[in-house]
Amino acid sequence: MKPVVELITTGSELLNGRTVNRHAQALGAHLDRLGYELIRDTTVPDDLPSIRDALKWALTRVDVVVISGGLGPTTDDVTPEAVAGLFGRSVAMDAASLESLRRRYERMGRAITPSAERQARIVEKAVALPNPVGVAPGERLEVGGKTVFILPGPPAEFLAILEQYVLPWLDAALPDRPAVRQALLMVCGLGESDIATVFDKAGFPPADVRTAYCAAPGRIEVRFATGPSAGNVEAVAAEAGRLLGGHVFSTRREDLEDVVGRLLAQQGKTLAVAESCTGGAIGARLTSVSGSSAYFRGGIIAYANDVKTAQLGIDADMIEGKGSVSPRVAARMAGAARERIRTDFGLGITGIAGPTGGTPEKPVGLVYIALADEAGVQVRQYRFGGDRERVRDWSVRMALDMLRRRLQGIRESDAFGIDSPPA
Amino acid sequence: MKPVVELITTGSELLNGRTVNRHAQALGAHLDRLGYELIRDTTVPDDLPSIRDALKWALTRVDVVVISGGLGPTTDDVTPEAVAGLFGRSVAMDAASLESLRRRYERMGRAITPSAERQARIVEKAVALPNPVGVAPGERLEVGGKTVFILPGPPAEFLAILEQYVLPWLDAALPDRPAVRQALLMVCGLGESDIATVFDKAGFPPADVRTAYCAAPGRIEVRFATGPSAGNVEAVAAEAGRLLGGHVFSTRREDLEDVVGRLLAQQGKTLAVAESCTGGAIGARLTSVSGSSAYFRGGIIAYANDVKTAQLGIDADMIEGKGSVSPRVAARMAGAARERIRTDFGLGITGIAGPTGGTPEKPVGLVYIALADEAGVQVRQYRFGGDRERVRDWSVRMALDMLRRRLQGIRESDAFGIDSPPA
Repeated sequence: MKPVVELITTGSELLNGRTVNRHAQALGAHLDRLGYELIRDTTVPDDLPSIRDALKWALTRVDVVVISGGLGPTTDDVTPEAVAGLFGRSVAMDAASLESLRRRYERMGRAITPSAERQARIVEKAVALPNPVGVAPGERLEVGGKTVFILPGPPAEFLAILEQYVLPWLDAALPDRPAVRQALLMVCGLGESDIATVFDKAGFPPADVRTAYCAAPGRIEVRFATGPSAGNVEAVAAEAGRLLGGHVFSTRREDLEDVVGRLLAQQGKTLAVAESCTGGAIGARLTSVSGSSAYFRGGIIAYANDVKTAQLGIDADMIEGKGSVSPRVAARMAGAARERIRTDFGLGITGIAGPTGGTPEKPVGLVYIALADEAGVQVRQYRFGGDRERVRDWSVRMALDMLRRRLQGIRESDAFGIDSPPA
Repeated sequence: MKPVVELITTGSELLNGRTVNRHAQALGAHLDRLGYELIRDTTVPDDLPSIRDALKWALTRVDVVVISGGLGPTTDDVTPEAVAGLFGRSVAMDAASLESLRRRYERMGRAITPSAERQARIVEKAVALPNPVGVAPGERLEVGGKTVFILPGPPAEFLAILEQYVLPWLDAALPDRPAVRQALLMVCGLGESDIATVFDKAGFPPADVRTAYCAAPGRIEVRFATGPSAGNVEAVAAEAGRLLGGHVFSTRREDLEDVVGRLLAQQGKTLAVAESCTGGAIGARLTSVSGSSAYFRGGIIAYANDVKTAQLGIDADMIEGKGSVSPRVAARMAGAARERIRTDFGLGITGIAGPTGGTPEKPVGLVYIALADEAGVQVRQYRFGGDRERVRDWSVRMALDMLRRRLQGIRESDAFGIDSPPA
């Protein structure tokens, strides 16, 4: 038996747009921690032939299959029948589950219905896995050296039975499974292809290391995994960190607002913002972190130009002349935020988020980000690609990253000078 | 050809717990509206044999397959190779896509790398589908009467190409498919079970109407669907609208910032915000709408108490005495935002987002939202459940909804007085 599992998720609501399928993510995270790998999720409707077909093929690839859904009381709940049919077995009432179901209805002062009783049925020779948070039990079925788990579809019930019965079973089934060793780098300011180029040039990583990327605007998660025969995954991550330098902002799963918040708190520094094109999104991101009141004091959302003048004291002439999207305006915004809110740092941001408002000289995606402290103001110019949401997401992360680099004492040259990341 | 489609979602991050797969839900919802059915989603890792195997079997069941992911620049992006391999084709650079990619890099003032160029490769004889919001084009491939679409994995890019190329193609491919009739209501301020209770009491909806709910904090999408034999779905939606009254904020898929923005623009009114617990999130939400500069002027993020005093003129005594989470502080915030930013409306918000900072008198989730106009200030008290993110999301939507009701002239009593929605 290999440490691989497949999932079959049943439910028409997962395929007609009503519900997002979260089972694959939840099971995958648990298996990943356990040193197992989820290698496929097949999502099918509440339809007997589809479920049977998906199970038949999954069992040609793996020894353990988890099926979710189709254990409820209604006539579209047919998973036990589909599984039983594949193995030429019958479906029967599980006495203990039925008894527990009856007691449950008694406690509620209600008469049990035949429809409700259906939830106590399991596949012949299956082991019932009592449901600690719901009605229908899960089941474990052994057939010809293969194991099939059937779990209820509601996420809370799926997870409860998974944690109580399935994971311990998997843990015991393969005690000698090789540990998968993983490491993570969170990167800001580089695109996936930049990272790949840096790695390629260095002949990195070693062939026995798997690398996976997961990108959001302004943030890329790079994961390394090694099997037991490969080298130390921490050494691989350390080498990657050396190659990527100041672009790495964390070695755990967190975002820039967490890192910036921690650095500000550690250094006893405070921050204010003056936001135009982001409209408050930097403040919203910073305050999404519990405890942010220790370092984030507030700011000005200066969306209209005369708010920049009235609330931040920026000369109307300066805006009139070159427009509000300029390095000078960004610098003044950052300085004014810092002075007016009385903080150590001020972040100012102005740009053209689009899709309208661009000109040949000032195209959509042009954003100026300024960082002020007691020593002065630094301004960076960016040209982000993509739609309005993407330009704004990039803007927020690059503003936070500018402050992160300052707080970590990273010189521009250490970041090999990429000012306009791909977007 | 039958109106059925299969999806193959590629991406190791979808199976190791890092990311929730939202493609099936998004594609399913679109197909459902179009009268097509998504009959399976197979999620596989970034692994050439797995992708090829999944596609091979999908093509035995349906004539149209959509594949997402694996079009990026890195070596774990292998979808074109997997598809090409199955059909004995090669993978080659698409001249137009490469040219567009080069121009993009030129605009950013950067040299293109071979790694980045990989994103312009497509399967031999495929039609490139230009990516309006990202780099890698999608592709459409016709093989032996079957059609395979390959779309980028990032959700914004997946959706953009889906809407621009795939859905119109499907619509034209099967003009005589039976119509599914659907209607939609967007509801704010009620929970799912409130809506169900209202419907149940009224004996609504008719038996041949399918009702589906999709809930986000402070917003519920209610969808009705009838088959071709059933009655008029518009009449069903109109009856639901009558039952739910002022809680319905739209009959199309949009959010409160869109509706509030349209109402403000139509009425020629302007808005400013003063945000404490939401930290800028109301401003960020309002300015996510293109054209919001017509009505949103700006605001003050008054996260620290002395910023409320210095920037909004709120008596330090008032904050000292009862604390900053009070109806009076919220009212002053709304009034000061309106006066200082010189707008028709001011929204003020102060509350305890948690998880810390709650007391028996002022528990986590307590939020005051105030709306000021020339006539005075109205304050509403809420007690939201859930974690920090949920409390803040509810706060933002209920603040926007308060303004929406004012702009639509909905009296409190019309909304049957539910001030504290379930959370």
